[in-house]
Order: sequence, then structure tokens, then C-alpha cells
Amino acid sequence: MPICGWLLALSLAALTGNIVAANERTERNCSLTPPYIPSTAVNTTLRLQELREKMLPLNISAYIIPGTDAHLSEYIAPRDNRLAFMTGFTGSAGTAVVTQTKAAMWTDSRYWVQAERQMDCNWIHDKMQSQSVLCQAGINKSNAYISTERSWQMKVEHIRNQMADNPYDSTALLLSALDESAWLFNMRGNDIPYNPFFYSYTLLTMDEIWLFLHTERVTDELKVYLNASCNGPLCVQLKSYDTILGELKKFVAKPGCKVWIGTEYTNYAVVEVITQEKLFTSSYSPVLLTKAVKDETEQRVLRDAHVRDAVAVVQLLMWLENAVPKGTETELTAAHYVDKCRSKQMDNSGPSFETISASGPNAALAHYSPTNETCRRLTVDEMYLVDSGGQYLDGTTDITRTVHWGIPTAMQKEAFTRVLMGNIEISRTIFPSDTRGINIEMLGRRALWEVGLNYGHGTGHGVGNYFGVHEWPVGFQSNNIPFRAGMFTSIEPGYYKEDDFGIRIEDVAVTVPAQTKYGNNYLTFDTVSLVPYDKKLIDTSLLSSEQVRLTAASTSFINFFFYC
Amino acid sequence: MPICGWLLALSLAALTGNIVAANERTERNCSLTPPYIPSTAVNTTLRLQELREKMLPLNISAYIIPGTDAHLSEYIAPRDNRLAFMTGFTGSAGTAVVTQTKAAMWTDSRYWVQAERQMDCNWIHDKMQSQSVLCQAGINKSNAYISTERSWQMKVEHIRNQMADNPYDSTALLLSALDESAWLFNMRGNDIPYNPFFYSYTLLTMDEIWLFLHTERVTDELKVYLNASCNGPLCVQLKSYDTILGELKKFVAKPGCKVWIGTEYTNYAVVEVITQEKLFTSSYSPVLLTKAVKDETEQRVLRDAHVRDAVAVVQLLMWLENAVPKGTETELTAAHYVDKCRSKQMDNSGPSFETISASGPNAALAHYSPTNETCRRLTVDEMYLVDSGGQYLDGTTDITRTVHWGIPTAMQKEAFTRVLMGNIEISRTIFPSDTRGINIEMLGRRALWEVGLNYGHGTGHGVGNYFGVHEWPVGFQSNNIPFRAGMFTSIEPGYYKEDDFGIRIEDVAVTVPAQTKYGNNYLTFDTVSLVPYDKKLIDTSLLSSEQVRLTAASTSFINFFFYC
Repeated sequence: MPICGWLLALSLAALTGNIVAANERTERNCSLTPPYIPSTAVNTTLRLQELREKMLPLNISAYIIPGTDAHLSEYIAPRDNRLAFMTGFTGSAGTAVVTQTKAAMWTDSRYWVQAERQMDCNWIHDKMQSQSVLCQAGINKSNAYISTERSWQMKVEHIRNQMADNPYDSTALLLSALDESAWLFNMRGNDIPYNPFFYSYTLLTMDEIWLFLHTERVTDELKVYLNASCNGPLCVQLKSYDTILGELKKFVAKPGCKVWIGTEYTNYAVVEVITQEKLFTSSYSPVLLTKAVKDETEQRVLRDAHVRDAVAVVQLLMWLENAVPKGTETELTAAHYVDKCRSKQMDNSGPSFETISASGPNAALAHYSPTNETCRRLTVDEMYLVDSGGQYLDGTTDITRTVHWGIPTAMQKEAFTRVLMGNIEISRTIFPSDTRGINIEMLGRRALWEVGLNYGHGTGHGVGNYFGVHEWPVGFQSNNIPFRAGMFTSIEPGYYKEDDFGIRIEDVAVTVPAQTKYGNNYLTFDTVSLVPYDKKLIDTSLLSSEQVRLTAASTSFINFFFYC
Repeated sequence: MPICGWLLALSLAALTGNIVAANERTERNCSLTPPYIPSTAVNTTLRLQELREKMLPLNISAYIIPGTDAHLSEYIAPRDNRLAFMTGFTGSAGTAVVTQTKAAMWTDSRYWVQAERQMDCNWIHDKMQSQSVLCQAGINKSNAYISTERSWQMKVEHIRNQMADNPYDSTALLLSALDESAWLFNMRGNDIPYNPFFYSYTLLTMDEIWLFLHTERVTDELKVYLNASCNGPLCVQLKSYDTILGELKKFVAKPGCKVWIGTEYTNYAVVEVITQEKLFTSSYSPVLLTKAVKDETEQRVLRDAHVRDAVAVVQLLMWLENAVPKGTETELTAAHYVDKCRSKQMDNSGPSFETISASGPNAALAHYSPTNETCRRLTVDEMYLVDSGGQYLDGTTDITRTVHWGIPTAMQKEAFTRVLMGNIEISRTIFPSDTRGINIEMLGRRALWEVGLNYGHGTGHGVGNYFGVHEWPVGFQSNNIPFRAGMFTSIEPGYYKEDDFGIRIEDVAVTVPAQTKYGNNYLTFDTVSLVPYDKKLIDTSLLSSEQVRLTAASTSFINFFFYC
């Protein structure tokens, strides 16, 4: 496969001189007098002062700053990043609380180090041991490229049937997460970086469909597609995005109405409008539950997107294998390279998140993305972790590989192998349909636990057909829904040794029926990621014979192994 | 060891003639006209009619009948068994709801068949797939036998410290579960069969202790033990059991008070007395959380109780090995035999629950206890399951063994071996302290899942020092607390083939620190049950070499194996 050579020169020109020394003091130390504040931190004194002055006359004793927008989206537009503005911390997950005397921010372990680098000493940093809660948050383009067996009209009918079957007599369904409207209408947008979503709410009743969006962006073609000029049960009435609260209030005032919402991702301003007796709640709306199970077309094209995506990642790894020993590459050039390789693949519309390209100690940060200030040169002396994904018009991908171009230490090999064992054990396990991810997630950790190692993040999340890279509600956390055949999830155990190295092995897999000797309705995973693992890092003596057999039999190893 | 021979003769005399034919139709069939009602069912027509007549003038549209008493105890006194009275169903877990037109009862899979045998067609039977929720429900006897390092005064101080540390400023703790007061005061009673509890509530404040109980049963000796004649912070003020609601109401009326309750087991009549702003809730009180971690003395004596208990169970198994081929024994004679053997052990005060002694298809009911009507003769042609436990003054035991005295089928061997693999895999796993049981519970099921088998009950529950045999909140269910060193739990995977056989292998284990290569603060299980498994039922070809090694190395196998 061709190497994207031109980028190499470009990257070199742009990035020479941006490599920082590894031992520079990079984290704040608030216990010193005066406190040590790194140059990467933001001075938040004036911002906090202004916020506190505004809180006083309103008698607000504590102000909560979430890392989300009004749709509780995980990925947000820059304009909505209030958390970064107030705290300096730019990671994708965190919550801050400000009182008149204190300011505190909570992050999970992926971001502990980053927050210490970006926050000044106005902030208390609470390091959450638990995993972050993710939420899904998506128009203004033709639906032509959405590969699904179901038109939006079919989806609307299907969801209405579920509303009618609901014993609590809901008369309306309010869709608040951006991917709910995007899925229902087979539409995508570009309001959120990396996520093909558009700002929207939908209020669906048995005989009307109200779609709240920025109406000035709706083309005539799209109006025809949506039957926007009529008022019948399969006509989409377009309403201005900003009128959602007012319209909802008017709707709720009608007698006999009952509005169904998903509590995991609906913001309080919306819930507040609906009086208690007119509210019906479930964790997730029927739209998200239906969306979670891919139809046959969706499964086929999502697998196909992973084939193209694997080509791009293999191209990166082959190129690095040759280029790194020459000492010319950095975390940034590698990230740019894989992004470029993906962009050349059919139907790619960009990366699905900012590429995580991390060498040596930077990889210990788990979710580090390189900047000019922190970028490390890639060498044969350090392990390298690359977590990247693409948005394709047929599917969203997400994959992590960890490699070593020199001689790994025994500890690195053991840790990598145990992470791989975790990946394998989840992938090959057989479980009853409707088993929750949280009940089998420990298989990803068990081989690490045996020697006292662990990781501080979740073990996987849903992915879908050109949606957010973290597609709820599928995954391995306590608030994910039970697995059924046709769901796609990432499987991504890891291990991170502070100031030293980081390992993560992430594949995407689909739940498929498992043939068992005695039982029916059992499932297992079929891995759709096709990039090989770094054989150099595998200590096969740690693997059970069954693990060796399954690893050797995997498509990854047979078809693509590039170190062989 | 001597065999309790006299019981054999006694049992034979009592039970001859009580064996029923295996194929008699024993379950109701409400779809027939007229419906088929087995002779074991209770006619509930008049009872339901009376209840419904009483509901009408009160405008009650649905009446809920729990299987619990006012303390939400799992094991209840006969006088509180409203569920059995109304429905006919006498199992230990179930909930019924009666409306003017319908009557329905929910049970878990352990009781599906039993309920079908005991209920008439007035009742809809909802077979819950989820596991039943258990609750813990002790005095009127000297504390001399309670082996603990902690006097009740020390415990009270310890709990008060936790109340003071609580940021929500609770001023009082209300103890409602029967084992809470029993633990706090190192006292036990005999109000509940198989459970050494006494009806009680405790209201603990920073400077007072109110113990609500049947005061006429409190001896002078006990009053001295409790400092019952004073009013200071370490004096126990005895109040009449029936005054709890009135006294609580008066207490709550005082300004500034805040009452802490455990929501998992406090009844609504009590909660209702406390106004919302004076209520502080957590799933479990600090008493139950403290009680869950056994001190060194408690651990030592609880292990010791399991040694004595193992002798009784091994005596049973040895006796059956000889007696069954003669065709003279039944499920009931076996149950009586093991109960008798236990009663001869030091400090035994009876069984910890009604012995489950089940042969062939009866064992498929999971929680079947033999009666004169259902009792089967034990033969070399059927598998036999015995789940039994003892109350000892130093500890509570619970153990299940499944054996075969003839030639097991291939399917029986495979199922038994896979259940054993589940037991072994949980027992040997290493996990970080504070891991929840629900996160590792699947290890008990995994080997079964691989061939499409499963079981419909939980995988284990806490046990303690002369308390209820199901000691909350330790265990493997979603509402159990994270494991810490010093907790005792049962480990009890199983498999049940309807109308054919049932398998369960239950041991009790204590969580102990695990030595790991790299990490600290890891735990594993140390099995304290000492009764060997039936080697005849183990297909070693299914075991991994690690499982064979660990099984062979277990104390059970080395010291006690009785078939060798």
C-alpha cells in the first residue's frame, strides 16, 4: 500500500523545534509558597471573581459547570465549552462547582495529569476513581448517503408503535440528544467537530412531528424530503430551535398529554417545563434503544467501513516502522499522517475525534493528544500508542494500537500481553442475550488484576453508522443497556504506568448469535477491527493454549500482520 | 467419625409410606376448563373476597402483600406470613398485588414450580427473571457467647464517630433491621425460626440510646449489661416495642434533628413519620457496613464453626454412601440425619434454615425442602442435592453438595464440572479491594454459558457470626456493597434441568489480601468450607491445568476426600 509521503515533508517543516524536553516541570504545585503554576495553566482569578459577583445578588450558593452543552452532548462545539473557559482544563470530561469561597473540578483518571497542567491554584482538583459518564449528543444535508433499511417514515411509525404499547400512556416523545433526531430523520449535520450532528429537538406525537432546528439552514430539497409543507402524521413541521421551551410549555398545557423523555441525557431546563404528572421517564428513549440494534444493512456497511479504516491504520504503522528509526517523526507528524491516510479512504469525512498519538510517558495520560508544546519525538526507546478513528458516510470507527520499534522491557511485554488477554477474553466470551456489559467487563481486567495491575477508564462504548464515536447506550458501564445481537461496541482494556508508558488495545466488535451445545439465545462478539497487534510485545508464555489458538486464528494476525 | 445411627431407625419408622410417585400431576393448569387445581393448592377465593371488600370503602385500588415483616426481614415468624395466607405460596420470597379484578404474585425462578403447586387459579403468576431481593432482619439472652473484640459500648462509640463524620449532620440513626440491634448490642434472640433475632428498633443519638423491644422479656441481668437504669450516652433506655412510631414522631418534632436510615430495609410506616427535610438516607446504615467486615476474632471463630460444620456434612455423606444402595433412605431421612449430626456439634443451636434435601427432579426446584407429600426415595439412579447450614454460637454456616451414588450421565458430569469450574473461578480470582460482587459474578456462570447453560438465582450472599444465613449487604448482587478484606460470602453457582436433576456447589469464603507481583490492595477468596466435592461427577478433561491444580490443592480434596 502506498505511503502518504508528501505529508512527511510538510510535517517536518512545520514541526521542527517543537519537541520539549521530557523532564521539564509540567504540573502545578499548590502546596509551595508561592504556588508553582506551569506555563500551560490558565489564570482564572478574574473569571472566578466575575462569576461570584454575579452569583451574589441571585442568592446562588453553588454554580455547577458541566462539560456538556444543553443537549448533554459528550462532544461539544467550542462556543459551549464553559468548563474550559472557567477552569483552563480542556479535556473532554469534567465537572466544576464554584461557591463564594471554593472552586473545585472533578475529572476521571484519563485527565488527572492534564488538569494539573492546565489549572491554576484557584481550583481544587478532585480525582474521581469512578468512570466518567458519557452522553450522546446531530442537519442540514441530504439523507442520500445514510445506509439503512429504514426510511424516516418507517422509523417514526416504529417509534409510535412503541409509544402506543407503553402502558403509561405517553402521548408525546421528546428527543433531546442530538443523535436521536439525526437517527430518526436519517440526517446529519456539522455543528459539532468530529460529530455529524446538528442542533435539534424533536417532539413526536401520534399525529404530529415537530422538528426544532435552525430553520434558515434547511434547504428546499430537505423540506421536500421531510414533507415540511403539510401537517399530517408523516409531515415534519419545522420550528425554530430557540422556541423549544416555549412550544413545549404550550404543548404541556393541553389536557391529557404525557411527555416521555430519556433521563440520562435530557437537560433540566426542558424537564422543568413538564409538570410531574405529565412526565414519563425512562433511562433512554425508545429511539436510542431501537438505534442501538443495527439492521442488516447497517451491520454490513459498518463492517465495511472498518475494512477501509484498517488500511489507513496499517499504512501509518508500516510508515512509522520505517521512519521512526531515522529520528524524524513526532507524535504530531504521526497524528497528521494517519488523519491524512484516512482522508484518502472512500467516503471518509474526517476523523471521528482528535487523534491520540502518544509516545512514552505521554501515553500514560491515556487520552493525551499532542500539541506543539508537549509533542515528543518518536524513538525506538519508547512505546507508542495511537488511538484514532474516522467518520465515514457509512460508519464510525475507533481503534487503538500500541507498538514498540525497539526492545521492550519485560514489564512492558507482560503488561501488553495482559491487556491483550483482556481484549481476547471479552471478545471470545459467550453470554446469554440481554446480559449487561458491566457484568462481563471484568474479563478485560482479570489478567491484569492477577499481577496487581489495572486501568482507570471504561472498557468500551457503542459505535454506529456515522454518528458520535461514543454511541450510547451500548457499552460496558453500569448505565449501559443489556447486549442484544446487532449491537456494536469497542473493547479497549489498557494499562498506564505514570511517567513511563501507556498501553491500550482497542477493537470494535459486533454482538452475534453464538452456537452452544445445549442452549439458545446466546451471544458472543465478532471483532470487525482488522489491524494486527504488535507481535513483538506479546509474551505467548502468559497465554493459555486457548488464547494462543484464538489469537493466532484472528483475521488480524492472518491477513495483515505487518511485522511478519 | 461416628454415624448418628439411632436417627436412621427413627426416620424409617416415621416416614415409611410417604414416598410419592414421580409422575403424578403436581402443578395447576388454569387453561383447562375447569381449571386443574392440585391437592397441594390453597383455595383463596374467600380470602381474596374479604380483602377486596375491605379495600373498597378505603378507596384502595391495589394492595401489595410483601413476603416480609415490618422490618423487611427475609426470614419471618409464622404470624407475619401474610403472603402465604393470601396466596397459598409458602416459599421464602415473593410479592403479591391484589386489585378488585386481579390478583398476581411475583416469584423468582427458585419458586416457579412450587408456586404453581400451591396457588389456585385466582392468581396470576409472574415469573421474575431477576433475582429476589433479600433483606436482613436479634435478645433476650446473655451476651456471653458472642465472640467479638468489640463490646457494645465500643460499637456505639464507633458508630457515633461515623455519624459525626457524616457531612449531612445526621443527629440520630434509626436501626430497623433486626440484625442491626442484635449486632450493636452483642445480643441474640429466638423470635424468628432459624434466625437468632429479637423484635427490635434502635434510635441512636450522640447522647442517648433508645432500644425498642418487648421489655417484659428483658431479664435483670440483661438490664445491668445494658446500663438500663441511667440516661447517659452509654446507657440503653429500654422502650416498649410498640411505641416506636409514636416515640419517633415526638423525636422528629424536635428542631434540628436529622434521622439517618438505611433505605434497603426500612419499612414505609417508619419512613413516613420522618419529614423529608429531617431524613438522611443511604442504602445501608453504618451499622450494616461496619458489621460486614469481621474483626480478627470473628474471622477466627467463624472459620472454626465451619470445621465443626464440615464434620456433620461429611457424616451425612458417608452415611448416605452406605445407606442409599439399600433403598431405605429418603429426602426427609437425609435431612433429619444432617440436622441431627449438626446438633451434636459443639455450640450448635440448630439449623440456619430448613434443610434442602432434594433428589432427582426435586433438586431442579433449586430451593425445595421435602415434605411428607413430595418426599422421594434416594436411589443410585438419581443425583442428590443437599443444601444445609447450622447456627453455632460463634458462626453461621451454609453449604451445598451434589452427589451421585450410581453412574451419572455425560450431561450430568459436564454440568456438574462446569458448575464446579464456576465455583473455582470465583474463588481463585484476584481483584482490587472495593470491587463489587456483581462485577465478578459472571465467573460463576462463564463455564456454563460456554455451552448454553445458566442458572436463575444469585451467586452468593454474606454470612456472619450467629446471624441470619443470608447476611446483607455482602454478596454478588447489584445492591451488595463492594468487597473488602474480612467479609464472608457464599459462592454458589448451580444448574437445574427441569424435571430431571439439580446441581449446586456452595462454599463459604472469606475475602483476604492477595499478594500480587506489582500492585497493593488486591483481594482474593479463601474458602472456609471443608467438605469435599463428589469426584465421580468431575470430568477433569474440561478443567484447565490451573483449575486441576487448584482443585487438587484445595484443603477439601487433600484432607477430607471421602471417596478416595
